[in-house]
Amino acid sequence: MAARLSSAAHYEALLAKYDTWMFDCDGVLWHGDRLIDGAIEVLDLLRSRNKKVLFVTNNATKSRKSYKGKFDTLGVEAHVDEIYGSAYAAAVYVSSVMKLPKDKKVYVIGMKGMEDELRDEGVAFLGGTDPADSTLSPFSLDAFTLDPTVGAVLCGLDTSINYTKLSKAFQYLTRNTGCAFLATNEDSTYPAGGGLLPGAGAISAPLRYALGRDPVSIGKPASTMLDCIKAKVNFDPARTIMIGDRLNTDILFGQNGGLATLLVLTGITTEAEVTGPTASSIVPDFVTQSIGDLRVLGK
Amino acid sequence: MAARLSSAAHYEALLAKYDTWMFDCDGVLWHGDRLIDGAIEVLDLLRSRNKKVLFVTNNATKSRKSYKGKFDTLGVEAHVDEIYGSAYAAAVYVSSVMKLPKDKKVYVIGMKGMEDELRDEGVAFLGGTDPADSTLSPFSLDAFTLDPTVGAVLCGLDTSINYTKLSKAFQYLTRNTGCAFLATNEDSTYPAGGGLLPGAGAISAPLRYALGRDPVSIGKPASTMLDCIKAKVNFDPARTIMIGDRLNTDILFGQNGGLATLLVLTGITTEAEVTGPTASSIVPDFVTQSIGDLRVLGK
Repeated sequence: MAARLSSAAHYEALLAKYDTWMFDCDGVLWHGDRLIDGAIEVLDLLRSRNKKVLFVTNNATKSRKSYKGKFDTLGVEAHVDEIYGSAYAAAVYVSSVMKLPKDKKVYVIGMKGMEDELRDEGVAFLGGTDPADSTLSPFSLDAFTLDPTVGAVLCGLDTSINYTKLSKAFQYLTRNTGCAFLATNEDSTYPAGGGLLPGAGAISAPLRYALGRDPVSIGKPASTMLDCIKAKVNFDPARTIMIGDRLNTDILFGQNGGLATLLVLTGITTEAEVTGPTASSIVPDFVTQSIGDLRVLGK
Repeated sequence: MAARLSSAAHYEALLAKYDTWMFDCDGVLWHGDRLIDGAIEVLDLLRSRNKKVLFVTNNATKSRKSYKGKFDTLGVEAHVDEIYGSAYAAAVYVSSVMKLPKDKKVYVIGMKGMEDELRDEGVAFLGGTDPADSTLSPFSLDAFTLDPTVGAVLCGLDTSINYTKLSKAFQYLTRNTGCAFLATNEDSTYPAGGGLLPGAGAISAPLRYALGRDPVSIGKPASTMLDCIKAKVNFDPARTIMIGDRLNTDILFGQNGGLATLLVLTGITTEAEVTGPTASSIVPDFVTQSIGDLRVLGK
């Protein structure tokens, strides 16, 4: 059972045990454009106690640089090299883990942030925001020319998803031998405008269904994201805690990586999913109402 | 094991046993715009022997009336009341099986043919080909007004699929209590231009994934389609044969309905899926190379 934290002594014990604090962002530090009460003070407090702070997000629509703009707008201190997004992790995966040859390309279903990260990692790509693929006209297979250099299809959240993009990706995945099927993340939904919208997993779902094949998923809860962080940052998993609002992404990610886990209830997970007869089988080490609760330490 | 048919005696025995002949169309009678050799002669032969001929297609992009145009263009005799499409069956399902109250509407992800069939059955709908939903602009949940009268979401093949349609459908399915989730069919792919493209099942897949819930599927292999035919045509299942090129739609549909089944190899199913170590667990009663093979009877 998860330990419920509520007193200064509880939080002080946490600070003593963990040197590296990995944060999910939406639902933990903010909701859309609204800061969670106390988030800035708690991050400042952690930094003042010499804790390493990292931000680990499945948001693949923004590059790290552009995601930093979100922190700036909300007045949250963050450095680009503290931010790990699934678009960045996917680009690192393509260049450094699968080591896509330099004469091969990635067909992108995704947005500008994903293109920026691929470009920064020196990965050639097509599709993405290309106006030729931003169309609702019928797709003609007869008029389509298969690019034999496409060695991977990478899917992330793409609010311009359409049948042409799906059809092209399907051709590459069925006709280019060995073409890899990658997804930045498989979140079923994401919070937006006070509700939920279909997430990145819903964007790769048509291909998964048509192919009868699952993508390699990069973001939380996959350990690929943690491997990407490990390649860049020194930290001891035994002294690291992952803080998130989602059991099947954030908390599972921490558990898969051997990290401690702290669930906050300011996001998608409700009290009923943590305790009681309908509780999830994914059990975090610790639960607290809000990250803002740790403010008591600063008093 | 399926009985392999090849001689006039084999086909003559088939004619003696079955009075009603249900045909899948694409891959059986034609490929796209090209007739299967002998298809017209065989259909004429069946009619001359007083067999009832029905056409049962999962194609949900065309109404029966417009699908008849396809027969006309190819010179194949067919009457509208011999044609059963999944858009028509879905409209009948909504009006006659689920009996959607007259003050309720269907949100459509689909094309003109589906709208035509719903209109003919007196079912109110929104979405579909509405220009307001044909957009690649970002979807704003704040600007969206939920229509509380939407009592069902119906998904079919829609080559104008986009994020706005998926997001609206997701809102109805999660926020309108009791909203039904329907799919015309769940074909993973369909043949086009000498290749394959993502099918209707790929269009409902994002919703299935985001919702964690499967739609009620109307078309083959579901028996809903056969119930729809039964409501309109008299036939004895024990003296009916279903002819198709797909094991997991056509042949399974026949088996689910207690019909005999004949697989042709002019479409999507290969010889290796019928015999040998990689054979499917779905075994038709009979196999013949092409529907055109039955021409020997006319000689």
